[in-house]
Amino acid sequence: MTFTPRTPRVVAARRLQRRRDRDRTGRFLAEGPQAVRSALAAGVVLELFGTDAALTRHGDLALQAPVVSPVTDEGLAALAETVQPQGLVAVCEQVDVPLAEALAKQPRLVAIVAEIRDPGNAGTVLRTADAAGAAAVVFAGDAVDPYNGKCVRSSAGSLFNVDVVRAPLTVAADLRAAGLLVLATTGYGDADLDELLDDGSLASPTAWLFGSEAHGLPDDVLKAADKRVRVPIYGGAESLNLGAAAAVCLYASARAQRSPRRPS
Amino acid sequence: MTFTPRTPRVVAARRLQRRRDRDRTGRFLAEGPQAVRSALAAGVVLELFGTDAALTRHGDLALQAPVVSPVTDEGLAALAETVQPQGLVAVCEQVDVPLAEALAKQPRLVAIVAEIRDPGNAGTVLRTADAAGAAAVVFAGDAVDPYNGKCVRSSAGSLFNVDVVRAPLTVAADLRAAGLLVLATTGYGDADLDELLDDGSLASPTAWLFGSEAHGLPDDVLKAADKRVRVPIYGGAESLNLGAAAAVCLYASARAQRSPRRPS
Repeated sequence: MTFTPRTPRVVAARRLQRRRDRDRTGRFLAEGPQAVRSALAAGVVLELFGTDAALTRHGDLALQAPVVSPVTDEGLAALAETVQPQGLVAVCEQVDVPLAEALAKQPRLVAIVAEIRDPGNAGTVLRTADAAGAAAVVFAGDAVDPYNGKCVRSSAGSLFNVDVVRAPLTVAADLRAAGLLVLATTGYGDADLDELLDDGSLASPTAWLFGSEAHGLPDDVLKAADKRVRVPIYGGAESLNLGAAAAVCLYASARAQRSPRRPS
Repeated sequence: MTFTPRTPRVVAARRLQRRRDRDRTGRFLAEGPQAVRSALAAGVVLELFGTDAALTRHGDLALQAPVVSPVTDEGLAALAETVQPQGLVAVCEQVDVPLAEALAKQPRLVAIVAEIRDPGNAGTVLRTADAAGAAAVVFAGDAVDPYNGKCVRSSAGSLFNVDVVRAPLTVAADLRAAGLLVLATTGYGDADLDELLDDGSLASPTAWLFGSEAHGLPDDVLKAADKRVRVPIYGGAESLNLGAAAAVCLYASARAQRSPRRPS
């Protein structure tokens, strides 16, 4: 039997496009073969919806899913949020873990997205943090839901690769107490990223705080950090966008932590 | 007199939302106070359209414009491509320069967006290149029009701060002939960015080649480069997005060029 947009299982899954239903059920949707592959590897897929064509093409994924539900093109379109969903949508269990669980692993690199409401930006930071080897990404304060469809897509599977934590803005103090150097990014920082690279500070276990592009970090969060850091601007630009700033900071840490004996 | 959407000057300016009319006239539109300020500083504004409220609020900008044309809210909405245009749209002369003119200044850092068709991505690379101190950004091959509205907005004024060049894909050979180290970014590169930082290569004048996220760089462009470079991936992510990869590479060069005597 092939499900349609009106099949109750499809109707129920579709509701997960809404935050309220994600929060209520502890589930969310992952769309497209790349995200589905990562979700399967993480063991969190509950049901895989796919068109016949997609289930044939991605037979390896269909074999790993606990429940496979064929859907019509219209059924798939109802579940998907993109124009070209590539035929697969998985219902997944949410993956976030308590802060204490993430800290117990003694992470050496953590990214905190603080009050970042743009899902594309948050997902991009998640992907970049994963690439740079961060062990955890904290969604702090009134940040976007990490299971928002656009955030999941922008993370390109990284949502399943790192410890995702949801915490209040006071998380910075918890990370300091756990021995991490807490660095807040701001265009008005008194410390320059190059100085921190020169003086060896970045070899320490570090948590980077990133705020929204429009509003930056709240004052009390800036004050709670060990240092307020600016990425140097060498040209006429006023600033970097959030994704670029996060990439420069997280990769500076990644390199410094792997080259502790030489200035980097 | 306040112009409406049907005023011929507004109708003519609005046509610049289309590439064909931009190409024909050598003009384009810059939207919002930040872009207008940069365009005025670059001396390329021909006419500034603004609502009464915006022209009052940004009186300093209105004073610098050679022609100021008040428009109704509807007239402004017709000229603007965003939902919140902040009341100002300027008609500007295109700013790109021939490659020879950019090379005559002996740039030490150049970014090349090769066949990148996504205007947001191209504009973001332009902004990041400017921030990292690049002197020129080359739109190569079948890349997006640098004067596409979304590209202009994503560049956040950087379009006016660097030498923008439009060139065929063979530009890589010209840059090598001019003495620049040409580095092509690819997930399959044989050189690792960290190796280039360690061996001091990045202190040289450098041109970075970036391809589209979907297709990467064409094979002949990869072959024409001095080296094919990958940004190291330390976690589970398959890759970085284009904006993040460009930020890491361009800032690696910026730092290496400013610290030539120590390994960085």
